[in-house]
Amino acid sequence: MTVLDRLSLNQATVKRLGVPEAVDLCVRHGIKAIGLWREPVAELGLDEAAATVKAAGLRVSSLCRAGFFTHADPVARQAAIADNKAAIAEAAALGTSTLVLVSGGLVPGSRDIGLARRMIADAIGELVPVAQSYGVRLGIEALHPVFAADRCVITRLGEALDLAVQFPANAVGVVVDTYHVWWDAALLADIARAGERIVSYQVCDWILPLPADTLLGRGHVGDGYIDFPPVSAAVAAAGYTGDIEVEIFNEAIWSAPPDETAATVIDRFPRAF
Amino acid sequence: MTVLDRLSLNQATVKRLGVPEAVDLCVRHGIKAIGLWREPVAELGLDEAAATVKAAGLRVSSLCRAGFFTHADPVARQAAIADNKAAIAEAAALGTSTLVLVSGGLVPGSRDIGLARRMIADAIGELVPVAQSYGVRLGIEALHPVFAADRCVITRLGEALDLAVQFPANAVGVVVDTYHVWWDAALLADIARAGERIVSYQVCDWILPLPADTLLGRGHVGDGYIDFPPVSAAVAAAGYTGDIEVEIFNEAIWSAPPDETAATVIDRFPRAF
Repeated sequence: MTVLDRLSLNQATVKRLGVPEAVDLCVRHGIKAIGLWREPVAELGLDEAAATVKAAGLRVSSLCRAGFFTHADPVARQAAIADNKAAIAEAAALGTSTLVLVSGGLVPGSRDIGLARRMIADAIGELVPVAQSYGVRLGIEALHPVFAADRCVITRLGEALDLAVQFPANAVGVVVDTYHVWWDAALLADIARAGERIVSYQVCDWILPLPADTLLGRGHVGDGYIDFPPVSAAVAAAGYTGDIEVEIFNEAIWSAPPDETAATVIDRFPRAF
Repeated sequence: MTVLDRLSLNQATVKRLGVPEAVDLCVRHGIKAIGLWREPVAELGLDEAAATVKAAGLRVSSLCRAGFFTHADPVARQAAIADNKAAIAEAAALGTSTLVLVSGGLVPGSRDIGLARRMIADAIGELVPVAQSYGVRLGIEALHPVFAADRCVITRLGEALDLAVQFPANAVGVVVDTYHVWWDAALLADIARAGERIVSYQVCDWILPLPADTLLGRGHVGDGYIDFPPVSAAVAAAGYTGDIEVEIFNEAIWSAPPDETAATVIDRFPRAF
């Protein structure tokens, strides 16, 4: 088994493709796993999507994404919980045990970042029994602090882990995404501490200048500033043996021919180790 | 003494003004301290700048900025050290005991963030005796992780502090700038831990969307997402009694009439407490 056997193409990297086309792309390029997104899955239909990946013999490394727990209105918070429960069921139906959570930014109308964090902890607590009943683990993803205000107040792997360990390990873990956490002086120590809590490892590069839409400033492995091998080594030493997703949000890559993107992903992937 | 007595206008907030004009602006608006920048000081001449602020009766809260220690070429590293030594002397000549350091991003041509960090530690160690001989403290500023690759690999107050405590307290401290560190779950604990190491407290807000030049995405207190009062309370509880700078990099504010900017700074300042 080579490292390429663990490569998973996160569907966001080829955002313009539906599930069948993304699955075909993986098969065509010998990529053995895929990270799916809820929107294209819903577009095709959950059962059909599950059947498509199964027929192709692909592993589903994760389902992206649930979360967004921080709402001022209790009704909106309950709706988010209900939506997250649905996402857990979808993950199970798709045959993945990992549901990625982007937890949410500041509560609209409030600057109290502690309030947002407590809301996230409460919501995850409510989801734990559901996750356990489906055999799905919630992956708390720390997002880069540039997204703290509007998308995710959980900004460091260590913080994600401090939250995760409040819950059973079979229900809640953490996602390590190089793009979001590469700058953190405590990163390697926090990966070691995370151990079996790591439910997903995602790689893509930090590139500059940032584009107008900050969300899209990601690059192929090797195109930016991240020193991947020490991070990959730490994730391996922590005991993570699962799929490794390449997840790139980048308008130019989305506009490129998908076969070209897949070929570049495969070509660059070994550089991460 | 009210909180306004501790307000210092960082010159970067009125970037288009030279030292004499910025000093006049402070005097006109009853602002009792100013944070100076090396470039406009050099433009006027160091002695003339020192005389100007002294004649106006202003305190100089800090000199911005030195640092930028991370260079692949040893000659460039030595040039940076020499420039930092000059900056220490300038700070002393201007009558401030605080020199703000922006330490530098990744070493050009290298993705080894540990190398950059070691280079910074080595450089600061070399500057310590010079700082002590002038009675100037070096303020290590943690910059927002969005600047980690290209401007400063020191990304958290806790990291700045871990570095600072390796040196004598009379030579090396930390700068707390709300814009850079507001998102950090460990911020309040790290401020408490910093105690007497805090050499400067700077306030400005985090606004969205980010502008094309990420450096300029700062707003007046109250225009963005930062919950200032808990941070200000923690800085006070840590024992910091010095000036509090308003430092805003923002093209629209730079283009506004300086008297309008000063009035807004004064109007908003109490909201930070």
